[in-house]
Amino acid sequence: MTEQSVVAPTITDKLVASREASRHLATATAQVKNAALEAIAAAVLSGAERILAANELDVANGRESGMSEGLQDRLRLTDARLQGLADAVRDVAALVDPVGQVVRGSTLPNGIHLTQVRVPFGVVGAIYEARPNVTIDIASLALKSGNAVVLRGGSAAQNSNGVLVELIQEAIVSVGLPAELVQTIDEFGREGAKDLMRARGLVDVLIPRGSASLIQTVVTEAKVPVIETGAGVVHVFLDASADLDTAVAIVHNAKTHRPSVCNALETLLVHADSAERLLPPVLARLRDSGVTIHGDERTAAIVADVVPATEDDWATEYMSLDLAVRVVDDIDAAMDHIRRYSTHHTESIITQDLTSSERFLAEVDSAVVMVNASTRFTDGGEFGFGAEVGISTQKLHARGPMGLPELTSTKWIVRGSGQVRS
Amino acid sequence: MTEQSVVAPTITDKLVASREASRHLATATAQVKNAALEAIAAAVLSGAERILAANELDVANGRESGMSEGLQDRLRLTDARLQGLADAVRDVAALVDPVGQVVRGSTLPNGIHLTQVRVPFGVVGAIYEARPNVTIDIASLALKSGNAVVLRGGSAAQNSNGVLVELIQEAIVSVGLPAELVQTIDEFGREGAKDLMRARGLVDVLIPRGSASLIQTVVTEAKVPVIETGAGVVHVFLDASADLDTAVAIVHNAKTHRPSVCNALETLLVHADSAERLLPPVLARLRDSGVTIHGDERTAAIVADVVPATEDDWATEYMSLDLAVRVVDDIDAAMDHIRRYSTHHTESIITQDLTSSERFLAEVDSAVVMVNASTRFTDGGEFGFGAEVGISTQKLHARGPMGLPELTSTKWIVRGSGQVRS
Repeated sequence: MTEQSVVAPTITDKLVASREASRHLATATAQVKNAALEAIAAAVLSGAERILAANELDVANGRESGMSEGLQDRLRLTDARLQGLADAVRDVAALVDPVGQVVRGSTLPNGIHLTQVRVPFGVVGAIYEARPNVTIDIASLALKSGNAVVLRGGSAAQNSNGVLVELIQEAIVSVGLPAELVQTIDEFGREGAKDLMRARGLVDVLIPRGSASLIQTVVTEAKVPVIETGAGVVHVFLDASADLDTAVAIVHNAKTHRPSVCNALETLLVHADSAERLLPPVLARLRDSGVTIHGDERTAAIVADVVPATEDDWATEYMSLDLAVRVVDDIDAAMDHIRRYSTHHTESIITQDLTSSERFLAEVDSAVVMVNASTRFTDGGEFGFGAEVGISTQKLHARGPMGLPELTSTKWIVRGSGQVRS
Repeated sequence: MTEQSVVAPTITDKLVASREASRHLATATAQVKNAALEAIAAAVLSGAERILAANELDVANGRESGMSEGLQDRLRLTDARLQGLADAVRDVAALVDPVGQVVRGSTLPNGIHLTQVRVPFGVVGAIYEARPNVTIDIASLALKSGNAVVLRGGSAAQNSNGVLVELIQEAIVSVGLPAELVQTIDEFGREGAKDLMRARGLVDVLIPRGSASLIQTVVTEAKVPVIETGAGVVHVFLDASADLDTAVAIVHNAKTHRPSVCNALETLLVHADSAERLLPPVLARLRDSGVTIHGDERTAAIVADVVPATEDDWATEYMSLDLAVRVVDDIDAAMDHIRRYSTHHTESIITQDLTSSERFLAEVDSAVVMVNASTRFTDGGEFGFGAEVGISTQKLHARGPMGLPELTSTKWIVRGSGQVRS
């Protein structure tokens, strides 16, 4: 027995340290936070050799364990990707600090001055998959919004994330902030993730990022508040009056611009009165780009080479060059279909009819509803937020693309001069 | 066997019906919603005989089963209380409709018009205790904000709530809205409450109202998003520079104005430099109103007849004429105490010093932080909201007193003219 032994911190120790560190950041100026971000951007570049060596180990392990090429690509870091990450951190530094923004305020009849101001959550937890870029991304967004962050990345990226968190911590400390503002709990494995989900009082909000199954697990197991960033079974409805060129361009853009992301089109609904006019040119353009059409019988009656769509197709987020197509009787049937199968992420109507447009915008209950625009615009960058924390598909706190303000809470400041309640 | 048998609806049937009914309300005008509220107010008065008969049954059952006088009083309805409830429903009708309010908007560089508007959640669940007034209260707030509501009240109020929901449904139907907008699931007992907490996709948000243990159960068991309306271990800190008259008046008001509510004072912290000056007059005034003082040793050294405070006292929400008192070395010690024991509801500093005031307001992490004002002002009515849904002690979605807008979500409306993403 030695006289003293160093005991590795438990996950609770780490979370308590995050909470304590978060206090220092809550009242830090934007100048200090930006200096930290600048130091992180510099560290990502100067530490490239260490990062890439650790990442190579992760990719090699992934290859040996039979990881798919696609997942290996998401896991892989390169000099160019590190440069992109450093640039993204500097972009976050350039954003307006949401902390301290006055949301609303008034002077009450009794003379009390009331102000609602944005404050950091405190400690944000993030659970995500084997994409080391998310480590840098979430850490920089959390720091800018004044939050400490506890990271649980996919185990397949553990070496990469370990080095990245070390570099981030060195950078934070170099500007006088506590290292515990950014911590990983990867060393605690799956049990650690479970503990994080249940850490009431230590974690203020938990953000899962990744596959539908990851998000589902977090949402159903967590005891701490969760912001659900969900899957997108996204619809475009071509109304009877849809303009042909607009329909062709928007459907093509929504499906093929970047098929693997959540705002890509998955199901096309077509008004029966316009199906013969619109479907042949719309689908021909898609096929030129290699899209496979999974259609219902009415679609197959109009265009050739349609894979018969099953019930499963309507509920599927393909994330690939596949599209489900269904001919519907009218706008009510289109909205019924959307109500049944949509994940309430984004839906767009293509129409020249004002009544149809207004009904669709009012009655479709999704985070983003559009008329005559590509669903690909559901994006924090496109909305002018400068950065995107994720796209919320829940209704509490934030819905749709989330920017920095969505990483904050508020508090009420009451300035009195001796008032009591009568 | 009869040829046909009527099968009672399951809880899922009821929730699906709520979801379906909520669609009708989501696009209803304020005029229609106000007509429904007016009909409910009238029904509460015209149906008084039925309500009071059912309530008498509940109170009698409560008395037989040994319910405390206090709980019996909360359960009991009278003609005067029904009049108060009807008036409150009419007050809600008079409030501005939050649905359709534009939160923010802009025109993007590509010409897309972007607007974020308030929309109803859809289906709100409420779990509460044996206070039938909450049935009317929550139902009217939910309807005004465009939401269907599913009610699970305490079993001890089941007869009262059954009649109230019947009357509400008759009133809603009389103005052409579906009865299923307001439903009770009391008939499913405890299992029903559990099903409600787990009804993902059918319930958009769940609001528990009642004791700390009820709220704790809901928060830890629910799989649907919850708004936590929490307990208040509320602090006042008398700084070294606190004005005597202000200190006496605010502490007295915060403790004795209505001791049983969540914004009442529970722990008084006093700067050591002002303890001898302030404690004798502050505590004398409290004792005149019958307050029992639970103090630490330093308090007992200054004033007589102090019940020794234990660790438990610091964490207790007395909700009675009891007060914990502790002398602290300085503002840092005061804020350390608050950080450790507060439920982050409301804290107030009494001071004449600007630095102390600004530090307290910035560093104390509670839903409402005050300077030189009574904690009793943490209230939706006092904040000018016109009504109060509850006081949120969580950081997600809403923090502090919640008004009608906090019963809504938002959605993004995108109006394009053929834009695609490049």
